[in-house]
Amino acid sequence: MTTYVHDFSDGDKDQKDLLGGKGANLAEMTNLGLPVPPGFTITTEACRAYLAAGHEPDGLADEVSAHLATLEAAMGRRLGDPADPLLVSVRSGAKFSMPGMMETVLNIGLNDESVVGLAAQSDDERFATDSYRRLLQMFGSTVLGIESEVFAEAHDALKKERGTVEDLDLGVDDLRALVATYKKAILEHAGREFPQDPREQMDLAVRAVFDSWNTDRAVLYRRQEQIPEDLGTAVNIQAMVFGNRGMSSGSGVCFTRDPASGAQGVYGDYLQNAQGEDVVAGIRNTVSLADLADLDRTSHDELLAIMATLEKHYRDMCDIEFTIERGKLWMLQTRVGKRTPEAAFRIAVHMVDEGLIDLDEALRRVSGAQLAQLMFPRFDPGAERTLLATGMNASPGAAVGKAVFDWGTAVEWAERGEDVILVRKETSPDDLHGMVVAKGILTSRGGKTSHAAVVARGMGRTCVCGAEALDVDTKEGRFTVRGGKTVHEGDLISIDGSTGEIFDGAVPVVDSHVVRYFEGDDVDDPVVSAVTRLVEHADSTRRLRVRTNADTAPDAARARRFGAQGIGLCRTEHMFLGDRRQLVEDLIVADDDAGQEAALQALLPLQRADFTEILEAMDGLPVTIRLIDPPLHEFLPDLTELSVAMAVADVRGHRKKRQRKLLEAVTRLHEQNPMLGLRGVRLGIVIPGLFTMQARAILEATAARVRAGGAPQPEIMIPLVASVRELDLVRHRIADVARDVAEETGIDLAFKVGTMIELPRAALTAGQIAGSAEFFSFGTNDLTQMTWGFSRDDVEASFFGTYLEQGVFPVSPFESLDTEGVGSLVRTAVRLGREARPDLHLGVCGEHGGDPASIHFFDEVGLDYVSCSPFRVPVARLEAGRSAVR
Amino acid sequence: MTTYVHDFSDGDKDQKDLLGGKGANLAEMTNLGLPVPPGFTITTEACRAYLAAGHEPDGLADEVSAHLATLEAAMGRRLGDPADPLLVSVRSGAKFSMPGMMETVLNIGLNDESVVGLAAQSDDERFATDSYRRLLQMFGSTVLGIESEVFAEAHDALKKERGTVEDLDLGVDDLRALVATYKKAILEHAGREFPQDPREQMDLAVRAVFDSWNTDRAVLYRRQEQIPEDLGTAVNIQAMVFGNRGMSSGSGVCFTRDPASGAQGVYGDYLQNAQGEDVVAGIRNTVSLADLADLDRTSHDELLAIMATLEKHYRDMCDIEFTIERGKLWMLQTRVGKRTPEAAFRIAVHMVDEGLIDLDEALRRVSGAQLAQLMFPRFDPGAERTLLATGMNASPGAAVGKAVFDWGTAVEWAERGEDVILVRKETSPDDLHGMVVAKGILTSRGGKTSHAAVVARGMGRTCVCGAEALDVDTKEGRFTVRGGKTVHEGDLISIDGSTGEIFDGAVPVVDSHVVRYFEGDDVDDPVVSAVTRLVEHADSTRRLRVRTNADTAPDAARARRFGAQGIGLCRTEHMFLGDRRQLVEDLIVADDDAGQEAALQALLPLQRADFTEILEAMDGLPVTIRLIDPPLHEFLPDLTELSVAMAVADVRGHRKKRQRKLLEAVTRLHEQNPMLGLRGVRLGIVIPGLFTMQARAILEATAARVRAGGAPQPEIMIPLVASVRELDLVRHRIADVARDVAEETGIDLAFKVGTMIELPRAALTAGQIAGSAEFFSFGTNDLTQMTWGFSRDDVEASFFGTYLEQGVFPVSPFESLDTEGVGSLVRTAVRLGREARPDLHLGVCGEHGGDPASIHFFDEVGLDYVSCSPFRVPVARLEAGRSAVR
Repeated sequence: MTTYVHDFSDGDKDQKDLLGGKGANLAEMTNLGLPVPPGFTITTEACRAYLAAGHEPDGLADEVSAHLATLEAAMGRRLGDPADPLLVSVRSGAKFSMPGMMETVLNIGLNDESVVGLAAQSDDERFATDSYRRLLQMFGSTVLGIESEVFAEAHDALKKERGTVEDLDLGVDDLRALVATYKKAILEHAGREFPQDPREQMDLAVRAVFDSWNTDRAVLYRRQEQIPEDLGTAVNIQAMVFGNRGMSSGSGVCFTRDPASGAQGVYGDYLQNAQGEDVVAGIRNTVSLADLADLDRTSHDELLAIMATLEKHYRDMCDIEFTIERGKLWMLQTRVGKRTPEAAFRIAVHMVDEGLIDLDEALRRVSGAQLAQLMFPRFDPGAERTLLATGMNASPGAAVGKAVFDWGTAVEWAERGEDVILVRKETSPDDLHGMVVAKGILTSRGGKTSHAAVVARGMGRTCVCGAEALDVDTKEGRFTVRGGKTVHEGDLISIDGSTGEIFDGAVPVVDSHVVRYFEGDDVDDPVVSAVTRLVEHADSTRRLRVRTNADTAPDAARARRFGAQGIGLCRTEHMFLGDRRQLVEDLIVADDDAGQEAALQALLPLQRADFTEILEAMDGLPVTIRLIDPPLHEFLPDLTELSVAMAVADVRGHRKKRQRKLLEAVTRLHEQNPMLGLRGVRLGIVIPGLFTMQARAILEATAARVRAGGAPQPEIMIPLVASVRELDLVRHRIADVARDVAEETGIDLAFKVGTMIELPRAALTAGQIAGSAEFFSFGTNDLTQMTWGFSRDDVEASFFGTYLEQGVFPVSPFESLDTEGVGSLVRTAVRLGREARPDLHLGVCGEHGGDPASIHFFDEVGLDYVSCSPFRVPVARLEAGRSAVR
Repeated sequence: MTTYVHDFSDGDKDQKDLLGGKGANLAEMTNLGLPVPPGFTITTEACRAYLAAGHEPDGLADEVSAHLATLEAAMGRRLGDPADPLLVSVRSGAKFSMPGMMETVLNIGLNDESVVGLAAQSDDERFATDSYRRLLQMFGSTVLGIESEVFAEAHDALKKERGTVEDLDLGVDDLRALVATYKKAILEHAGREFPQDPREQMDLAVRAVFDSWNTDRAVLYRRQEQIPEDLGTAVNIQAMVFGNRGMSSGSGVCFTRDPASGAQGVYGDYLQNAQGEDVVAGIRNTVSLADLADLDRTSHDELLAIMATLEKHYRDMCDIEFTIERGKLWMLQTRVGKRTPEAAFRIAVHMVDEGLIDLDEALRRVSGAQLAQLMFPRFDPGAERTLLATGMNASPGAAVGKAVFDWGTAVEWAERGEDVILVRKETSPDDLHGMVVAKGILTSRGGKTSHAAVVARGMGRTCVCGAEALDVDTKEGRFTVRGGKTVHEGDLISIDGSTGEIFDGAVPVVDSHVVRYFEGDDVDDPVVSAVTRLVEHADSTRRLRVRTNADTAPDAARARRFGAQGIGLCRTEHMFLGDRRQLVEDLIVADDDAGQEAALQALLPLQRADFTEILEAMDGLPVTIRLIDPPLHEFLPDLTELSVAMAVADVRGHRKKRQRKLLEAVTRLHEQNPMLGLRGVRLGIVIPGLFTMQARAILEATAARVRAGGAPQPEIMIPLVASVRELDLVRHRIADVARDVAEETGIDLAFKVGTMIELPRAALTAGQIAGSAEFFSFGTNDLTQMTWGFSRDDVEASFFGTYLEQGVFPVSPFESLDTEGVGSLVRTAVRLGREARPDLHLGVCGEHGGDPASIHFFDEVGLDYVSCSPFRVPVARLEAGRSAVR
């Protein structure tokens, strides 16, 4: 028969699946002999059985009775005994901590009779009555589902009547009156009396914990965090101890190291004559652990000894909740503590030096996401700042600019060179232009899946959203902080996308120390030392190589400083912009082959110079150059804009011959769905001269580099191949060019030809394609677009918010690879490709190459390298190492 | 050791792989004891060895010598013997007949000496000299690669000099002069003398046949017809017999049945005193087989006996070439004869009745493509017509209209209700508008893979292309038939896309008898009887069911008459056009929920009426209704056009409030890639009211039909699902609606909910999706778009021509399913889907559902049904039957 209830002494910290996080750690501490108030845990299995059946499983009630009897015997009191009641807390505890679930009901066991007994036993009638008041309030709101405002308002009304704002100013009679008011409120709002039977109180609280697994908020949270739906929660029932029994009592929270800086040494807050909830609520000022030593040296010393024990035992920084009841220390909770990115790196490295863990374990304890946080510019920690409000940290970074309230103004001001922050109640697709030009985006509504948040993350723009304290008036061009300052259009503000903070004026921004270090600056910062130590350890363990996406020599050089082992994607289309746009226009509007050839000849030396510089910057390392990919009309003006301009010119009787010719070309090349049109290898087949010119430029650059004594390693990559025949057509032309260049230069040219795998068909026929390709590079952006059938440009704005909210995906598949759908194509292509050509070289150059979760996937399926933007290179190095020690 | 040469007596008709079609059939006839001039075949294997090595394989020459010796012994003459020469023909013969390859060189063995011997032996100096002249001409052009015009011009010049146009008017001296002229021409153009050595003549001819395997035209043809590159061709060397040795000689071609009408009874042409090439060239008028009886009763009777033998032996209609040399009948070739679609059906059924074959075999001998041909309207066979010229039959159908020469005029005239034929030298994407509105398209340049041909087939428009006899002058708006009539803009012309013929004036068009029969007309036509008999047999053998794509009750009713077993795709977006467009506009531009709800409420009764009618028309059969799929902006005006109109209005100072609001909506909904945007299930999730309204309309219609005593079988289909979660969100809402409607009507509603599989991700995660779908319908149009990453709208015009020419695919993947790429996703989805839900119902509703080749694939992978347009239903029934007897 299944056992649904375990005593704290009957479990350990590794049983989080069964006992939840809180329960497992209480069991661990109990077994370490630490002073934990006794109790027991109802398992997640019981919860699952309850949720499946719709009622408590058979046998649960009896098991609870048995464990309760043991607890009563241990404490020498009976639950709700009118003379000397045992009181218990009922707390939820899932495997993963989860907002939206019911958390705690304290003081279970009090009723109209036992409150008298508690008063007598404690010799403190006020304490007993206040405890009863707290039970009614918690039970009413969390178990019976009454709005907590109902109780808060009654409490506030009473304090107002007494002319005070302090809870402690209320006397016994006041509290007794409040108890009566609360009981009336419960009857009115829940349609039932507050249950006087202590066991019924407990059973209802347990059931409420079970039910809270399925609140909307909990479901949404699980969906977003990819926590399985079917885990269920455990429930912990524990004898109450009281930190609010006078000045020799109190409650505290402490950490075995500083969770903010990572500095060695304990860190904590203590509040005299208070329960845990009061510490968290911040009603009164807490004191430090050092001050506790002055107040209660014995408890202090015992606590520090316990902290040392726990850290040594857990081999990690611990977060601890404790209560002192009349000079007796009790441990209420511990867990591995949350920490800032800075602290994560420093603590991990300190613990290696202290011999607690090895470097592999240290690597497991930090993450690429944390490192990425450390690489954003941030507000100067030493600078003064005025916090206006705090919203949600929707997209990281530190942005400073003038507040503007509509996209038109944003564009206008940005065009004249001003930094702007776009402030809206919420954004819509109409705001897109403004979001593109703004340094940051600030909204007063919407969560992390709102339009603003999704789009900002997509474009890497700093964003704070859902700052509800702001009253935004876009018509008047201002926002007012609730009960505070008004900011007008043009006023400077600063927003921190990593913390959600909004500051008045311009807070100075400083570059990341980590970035400065990689850039070669001499930086003396313990965080930087910790980061570099772990990144270097990652380098020594990882199988996966890390390349970069870079289109220019300066980018390539920077990426090399960041540790890139070559270029995985050098896009050539950016080289066709700027001054050269005219040549590309000439190429496109050319009436005949001669005109086209002339334009190509003019582009050739420019491209050769581009490639020579890039090969030089990456000398000795592979450089994968993708031949031109986007549709040609991307180099021409927009059809609608040009049509409007020409129509207006017509009406006004102006003549614009060149523009007219341009409009003809734009109309001819216009496509309903350019993403699905004439681009990539298709261009290379329809206009062979384009690819041939680029191949020649690459190979002439290679020859020039060889002549200069370099070691160029060019890899020519053909985009958008769907069928091996396409690749063959281009490959043969490249071979012809190579023969010509080798003859002309007399230099033996070493180079590779390969292809992108970015269309589902390429993945599905990868065996054939591998016969003609020396390498594959997965273009996971396009592969995601085609596999899901949506284009990033179009859909992030229009429905990704809804999709994230509704749980279609927990994170945009453009941020983190969809391993189920897109990933299965990657697996297929790897398998077929390697079967056909065992030495096939495999990499990825989509943006997923810099995404931590995706990097682990790419390592697992056996790619040889990932490629990502220069700034992401250290992140990828770290994650590739973490994947290796997984 | 490999044997490269086989005597005719050493082979049979099933050895086409080794001996080629011609060689295998010559062997078969030889072994049947028919009078075949003796000879031998050099195998395809020899050709492959030659092509691989670049020279004749070892041993080939010796084998040829040995077989030649046998042949010489049998004939009692030696090759090129000056006194009494053996002459041979050298003919290519691949497994599949293939234009573009060298075909025949006759009279090998003649030279300056043996021509004298031949003259003496035949006692006919003119015959001998003419035979030598023919050898020089054929050898010069086909073996030595000299333009055939060189010889034709010399021949014509001589006849002109002699004041005649008849070959027979040239005397011996003239022919001797022509021999001298030809020899000079060979020296001049080929840079070598005509080889006098008979064996060298033969070896060069054999080599020329081998080499002709790789001419551009042959390669292109193979690519287009999907004939493997590596088959190679055989070469047949056969003793010459002469039909040109006086009036008791002659040559003929005959068929064992009429290949045009399929009528029983022999059919053929005979030409006295002529060689086979003269019959084909049509220089003089041939006579019928009946006339042959009068000319040479013995040969006639022998021929008829042989024809009967062959037909009985081959169990099919045979196409025969024969020669009579001085009263002796010789069989030169036979093969299963090509036939018109009409003949194919009639012959197959006749042979069943004659006990030659069974119905399964009859079914194998006809095709859906042939049936489709019979279902096009065609020109009244009895009507008079004036043929102007013949081009290529690029896209079938019969079209009549006024000739127009630019797309602007096409659009203008079509808008005022005129039928037009767009005539161009060749078309470009600019002509697209004109092609859309034209009844037919006619070009003077380009083949079946030209832009005009590809686009016309894609849109089902009649097209004749590459009519080289037309001199098209688009500027002047006219075309002139070479040496003939001039047609001006506005003149009526008729084009037959099935034959390539271009007629002057309006040829009356008649409906297909087959279509009229299915429509219920009383048609007395032997072709129709044959068709229905085979379609009915197909029905009795096929596993695959055939449904139709129909959006209206009349279409549904028609499809039912055509044999549809339900609706596989009822699109609902067409129901939102016309009068209802205004309501849809209201829905889209609605400022608030109330406005949206009002528009939906107005649409509900209209949709309900739509569905009631369709369910009634298909009563008792399943009706799959797809909820709205396209992006909303498809119901709004074009962004560019509207922008231009508004800009012009602005300049002119006009105010257009509603239009301005519309422009706002159009701009808001504008997408870069609408195909990859907010459509399908995404719309249903973002605007839930839309799908809910449609589901309610379907279920209310179902209830109404049940109340009326009907047996409705609605199936609700969700488009564009990529993830099971999307399907679940919509499915639960539909379930809610169903509960409501069931309660409101008191009727127990039976219906299914399923999804399209049209995105790669849906196919890849079909196992999960099947958990929530009762049926899958493969949307192979979209699946093709996403798998290849190109959209049909954009690419057929821009690069499909090039892709077909370059052999990236042999046929557009939108016409015939790409079984390798797209097909592998279909296989995966079928496997995963059926594993998860064994009773999952599977169908296809893309246009591939009506394509013969694709139907076989769908049968093979185990789909339950295909769905296609009403007119394609009989084709699909036939092909499904053919697949079953495969």
